[in-house]
Amino acid sequence: MIKKTNTNRRQFIKNTAFLTAGAMSLPLMNFAETAPITTSDSIYLIGPQDGYSPHVGALLSTMTMMRQWVIDTVKDLTIAQLDFQIDEQSNSIGAMLLHLAATEKYYQLNTFDELAWGTWDEAIKKEWDVPSMLGKEGRQQIKGHDINYYLAKLKDVRAVTEKEFAKRDDDWLMKSEPFFQNKPTNNYCKWFHVCEHESNHRGQMKFIIKRFPA
Amino acid sequence: MIKKTNTNRRQFIKNTAFLTAGAMSLPLMNFAETAPITTSDSIYLIGPQDGYSPHVGALLSTMTMMRQWVIDTVKDLTIAQLDFQIDEQSNSIGAMLLHLAATEKYYQLNTFDELAWGTWDEAIKKEWDVPSMLGKEGRQQIKGHDINYYLAKLKDVRAVTEKEFAKRDDDWLMKSEPFFQNKPTNNYCKWFHVCEHESNHRGQMKFIIKRFPA
Repeated sequence: MIKKTNTNRRQFIKNTAFLTAGAMSLPLMNFAETAPITTSDSIYLIGPQDGYSPHVGALLSTMTMMRQWVIDTVKDLTIAQLDFQIDEQSNSIGAMLLHLAATEKYYQLNTFDELAWGTWDEAIKKEWDVPSMLGKEGRQQIKGHDINYYLAKLKDVRAVTEKEFAKRDDDWLMKSEPFFQNKPTNNYCKWFHVCEHESNHRGQMKFIIKRFPA
Repeated sequence: MIKKTNTNRRQFIKNTAFLTAGAMSLPLMNFAETAPITTSDSIYLIGPQDGYSPHVGALLSTMTMMRQWVIDTVKDLTIAQLDFQIDEQSNSIGAMLLHLAATEKYYQLNTFDELAWGTWDEAIKKEWDVPSMLGKEGRQQIKGHDINYYLAKLKDVRAVTEKEFAKRDDDWLMKSEPFFQNKPTNNYCKWFHVCEHESNHRGQMKFIIKRFPA
């Protein structure tokens, strides 16, 4: 299946040399050989980032890319479009955007502050439980905001994630507790979920946008 | 925001000791200190995997988790449910499942075989273009299959990805070309997209499942 056999052979020899030298640092050295990766170069260069431990940086780069795709999907929507419900049981795109911020906020409390899920302060629950739960309350309460309101909420929460990620290392990322399906779940997994969860809802947003009233 | 200051201080000192020893291998050593990670322990332990280079393994573990969530979402659906279309422009869940397999197949050709997007053999196009493009052709042609048909297709394609991932290293993951929005896009990004794309469609599948006719 591989076309560039020579390249792969050279790479293999090179890698073997590293290993023979007793270095366990293959991935870092490999990354160093390529152009330095920063999200400012392109959000499509996923991998370790300056200022973050390797896997934390790679994770953050996926979250940054995913977030940009969410923003690109919704940035031109009007208030009416953000409030639009495709049927009685649906969540508006606005509510889903606040839901993404709420989800990230709660995973911050769970993984950074190490609070058991749902044991947050009443003040936090008061602000975030409705967008976290969505449903009827969400439909009633989350409306009338323009896109800047939602994007600012998302940005504020993400800034905390970035700051806290920078303080932590890959070992923290591997810390686990029984969580999803009561199975061992590490912090990497929880934050991957925060990321893929944005894609999940972006899929629904795109579905709804295609069906906006003319 | 961090409660366990002492733990963090200890970790900092420990990490510093590693760095002082000249080792660039912090992430690997940190991972080694925790329980060995294999997906057989839990799909919710995201991170380096046995038999794969560190970031390739971490990426694969996200794909494995994501795939299981897709499977859990659809595994009990009947043929009628897999064929159900919520409206005239919608894709059935069955079509979306085959679309996920087609997407993965095409990213294999692009990243493993290094073929420019869309330059695949006619035989491959004949098999995969319809599920890749979806739309009207997809609605007409992809129907009447039970869940095992779709899951087998997904499994077959994934087996190739796993085999090819095992041959490659993190340096390969960082190789980039102009791709998304014509910006530098590396293989890590392309495969992250294959993964989040499953979440995107799972969001739509869940939306449709909630709206199945009684």
